[in-house]
Amino acid sequence: MKMLINSPQTVVADALRGLAAAHPELDVDVERGVVVRRDAREGGRVGLVSGGGSGHEPLHAGFVGYGMLSAACAGEVFTSPVPDQMMRAASAVHAGQGVLFVVKNYTGDVLNFQMAAELAEEDGVRVEQVLVNDDVAVTDSLYTAGRRGTGATLFVEKIAGAAAEEGAPLEQVAAIARRVNEFSRSFGVALSACSTPAKGGPTFDLPDGEMELGVGIHGEPGRERRAMMPAREIAEVAVGAVLEDLGEVPPADGPVLALVNGMGATPLLELYGFHAEVVRLLEARGVPLARALVGNYVTSLDMAGCSVTLCRADEEMLRLWDAPVQTAALRWGR
Amino acid sequence: MKMLINSPQTVVADALRGLAAAHPELDVDVERGVVVRRDAREGGRVGLVSGGGSGHEPLHAGFVGYGMLSAACAGEVFTSPVPDQMMRAASAVHAGQGVLFVVKNYTGDVLNFQMAAELAEEDGVRVEQVLVNDDVAVTDSLYTAGRRGTGATLFVEKIAGAAAEEGAPLEQVAAIARRVNEFSRSFGVALSACSTPAKGGPTFDLPDGEMELGVGIHGEPGRERRAMMPAREIAEVAVGAVLEDLGEVPPADGPVLALVNGMGATPLLELYGFHAEVVRLLEARGVPLARALVGNYVTSLDMAGCSVTLCRADEEMLRLWDAPVQTAALRWGR
Repeated sequence: MKMLINSPQTVVADALRGLAAAHPELDVDVERGVVVRRDAREGGRVGLVSGGGSGHEPLHAGFVGYGMLSAACAGEVFTSPVPDQMMRAASAVHAGQGVLFVVKNYTGDVLNFQMAAELAEEDGVRVEQVLVNDDVAVTDSLYTAGRRGTGATLFVEKIAGAAAEEGAPLEQVAAIARRVNEFSRSFGVALSACSTPAKGGPTFDLPDGEMELGVGIHGEPGRERRAMMPAREIAEVAVGAVLEDLGEVPPADGPVLALVNGMGATPLLELYGFHAEVVRLLEARGVPLARALVGNYVTSLDMAGCSVTLCRADEEMLRLWDAPVQTAALRWGR
Repeated sequence: MKMLINSPQTVVADALRGLAAAHPELDVDVERGVVVRRDAREGGRVGLVSGGGSGHEPLHAGFVGYGMLSAACAGEVFTSPVPDQMMRAASAVHAGQGVLFVVKNYTGDVLNFQMAAELAEEDGVRVEQVLVNDDVAVTDSLYTAGRRGTGATLFVEKIAGAAAEEGAPLEQVAAIARRVNEFSRSFGVALSACSTPAKGGPTFDLPDGEMELGVGIHGEPGRERRAMMPAREIAEVAVGAVLEDLGEVPPADGPVLALVNGMGATPLLELYGFHAEVVRLLEARGVPLARALVGNYVTSLDMAGCSVTLCRADEEMLRLWDAPVQTAALRWGR
């Protein structure tokens, strides 16, 4: 597998050097893998810290900035960052109002963020955590006990980030972050495997003419492997799975916020076509679409495919979604 | 080749339906393939119209909006739009101040925009054209006489769009568009071929372990095929080729605007690492980097690889580059 890299050992550090060069508004510790918004401590706001294995860019470092994350920790590819990174991030952004950790539900991330939270508390930093576990495809998986955290991470980081930017106290920022997660569901589909630099080739085997329904963002197995289908039928499976599970969240006719997310190698031309199918299905089921975002946001290196995330958004969530944001990968309203 | 589509025949129309659903601020004529900024005729500004074959998204429709394009015409995949589309776009955006066509240098586009310009003039719409031909890799190619138009298209559309937004007259908008093109150079590298929906598989053959240096945005052959190299060496070839050609444009030590552009399937993690190498090379040669943009902007469906575009930017260009923009794919400062 050909990659645009120097070596598998330097791929994360190289990317962080590039991020630093392209975004002077970010304070990038290349060696330690910590990306901090330069003005994180101004204004005495709650700090919002996330992170995870690399390979899902722009998640998380691309979401550091005004109205979203205060800092992000970058682990090696598909590998959790370590507690030392999270502690450094927490102390770099702490302005006396406490820190919220946004943690995707993978065993390594959960353990490491937990340890960092305990250590930070010992240092006098109040820490709350929100666990993102929105993927309805499977419970328990290769890296996870329980549901995996995927596309809803973007919703949690955007909406909780807007609340923190407004000056909401820690309990309130944590509460809305948890509510966004509880109100969100995702389902992913892979048309190809992804290749990690360390392995130098595909991490799993997906034969010609087949796709993986319910795939995880590291290529973990989903619900089933099936022969390729047209986009409209794939959308039916994905939206159907999400809406079925979202049925638990009232009101059934409430508006949703939608993310049609590319896994990395699927052209934007195809993602927009897929979005049209998602919209058609929501209309057919009488689900109002309040806002939509289409693009590559929570990726899996060079995997082809997409995921759909729906969040049953109340007025407060929509107001915070619309609030200004200025990061490397998400910008509007300012 | 697996694709997230309904059928090769509907791929462009499906994407336009999705674009319309995701961006209510755009007036999308799905049947005719014309995307217009709803407020295009407000304020009596010069209209900026571009377009080309589909498959390069977000170019061009993703750049329609405040401070950039007034309208874009979407052809079939890798196929020029027809004069009727360009005429409709011109008449939809014409507010009495004339229209500038931004044309990438491919024979079909050049002929069709020329015919549309003549027809529009007959209808009383004053039209100027700017031809984008920034690719230094080859002169004359599969679809082109002369140099191909690639990454500089984004610079031309952004900077001329800002001038039009400020109310500059047609001659001035056209002049700065031409200057941006004259001051810009690009070089692309493919690590894989791209697959068109119509063909259903790769459009050319690129063996394992080889890359195409100087590739075009439709996969046209470049300067040479060579065994894969580390990112730092690929950057040396690309930046070297661009700077050598840019040497014609004084001053030799003037600041540049840089685009490190993904071809579609190369992970953002790799693009940022590549950007670090570009920055290192510019520093080594004493070329000041004034602004940089890293991401997938002028793509070639699912091709893996990247391109580098440098523009020797004067103060006026940088000011217009920094001006607010609000489109589907490029947003800042507002």
